Amino acid sequence: MATIKVHGSPISTATMLVTATLYEKELEFEFVSINMRNGEHKKGPFISLNPFGQVPAFEDGDLKLFESRAITQYIDHEYADKGTKLTSSDSKKMAIMSVWSEVESLHYDQVASILVWELGIKTLFGIPLDSNVVEENEAKLDIILDVYEKRLSKSKYLGGDSFTLVDLHHLPSLLLLDEVTEQEIV
Amino acid sequence: MATIKVHGSPISTATMLVTATLYEKELEFEFVSINMRNGEHKKGPFISLNPFGQVPAFEDGDLKLFESRAITQYIDHEYADKGTKLTSSDSKKMAIMSVWSEVESLHYDQVASILVWELGIKTLFGIPLDSNVVEENEAKLDIILDVYEKRLSKSKYLGGDSFTLVDLHHLPSLLLLDEVTEQEIV
Repeated sequence: MATIKVHGSPISTATMLVTATLYEKELEFEFVSINMRNGEHKKGPFISLNPFGQVPAFEDGDLKLFESRAITQYIDHEYADKGTKLTSSDSKKMAIMSVWSEVESLHYDQVASILVWELGIKTLFGIPLDSNVVEENEAKLDIILDVYEKRLSKSKYLGGDSFTLVDLHHLPSLLLLDEVTEQEIV
Repeated sequence: MATIKVHGSPISTATMLVTATLYEKELEFEFVSINMRNGEHKKGPFISLNPFGQVPAFEDGDLKLFESRAITQYIDHEYADKGTKLTSSDSKKMAIMSVWSEVESLHYDQVASILVWELGIKTLFGIPLDSNVVEENEAKLDIILDVYEKRLSKSKYLGGDSFTLVDLHHLPSLLLLDEVTEQEIV
């Protein structure tokens, strides 16, 4: 089997999406650490893997990918017979899963990634946080969590009746936010 | 065949993604017009179709969906034998397509939707635009278009060697921006 390589940083939640998926699929991989403090992600050779200079990037033999959610979807499809199945093969179930996958990416993560930056990364590096930004995004997060509460009263998991990529995509930032905020999230 | 219904607004680019896909697939549908100026999208009955109160929402018989890109993907998969095929069935080609689909959603559209609002919708409703926001987002768009230029020097279409949902997802805002800006986009 071709070697799977993940180029990323252990403190990047987008990188964690990919490594968490690889663990769920019980796949071996090589981790290539990118030093973001030195700006290694903004120059060659990394920039040839992702023209936007963001971690992670991914290789599976000749195939080179970026964008974490495209990578996790590929892993689940390509290695369908390995580890936990993280998507559905039924067209209608898959459609519902895609709705909530978009909600994670376009609603939840837009807010969560700002809070991770403000409350997590900035604190880690001793940068003063912007309390207005934190307040505004905590209010937005509350609205999203209310929608999730309602969804989870009708569906066992966000994407459907089993654990899927939708749930997995929330985990890195959710666990990180749970550690750094007073809010009861998990 | 169950009736397909699209609940949306003709001036919403997200709504246009769905109707453009239905035209490409040569499918008949009923268009339910949502009056956004009256805030119809923020209250019942629309809010029961999309808890985030955003157009479009979609029905195909019993199946109810929201999030435009989840809807277009569903349409192409469910009606695979109708009209133009807009995705690939090959796992590796699909992965590459997904990368550029994420780029459209998380890079291009984040910027384009702000410019559509500032230069398109605000002008239409006679609201003064914020020139700082326009300038900042035009600069961001330039960077993205440079990446696209490079991609299109190697690949016939953004998602691969044929026209796919990736290209289609760019069309509504691209055509609108081309009309309202001085920049040569299309």
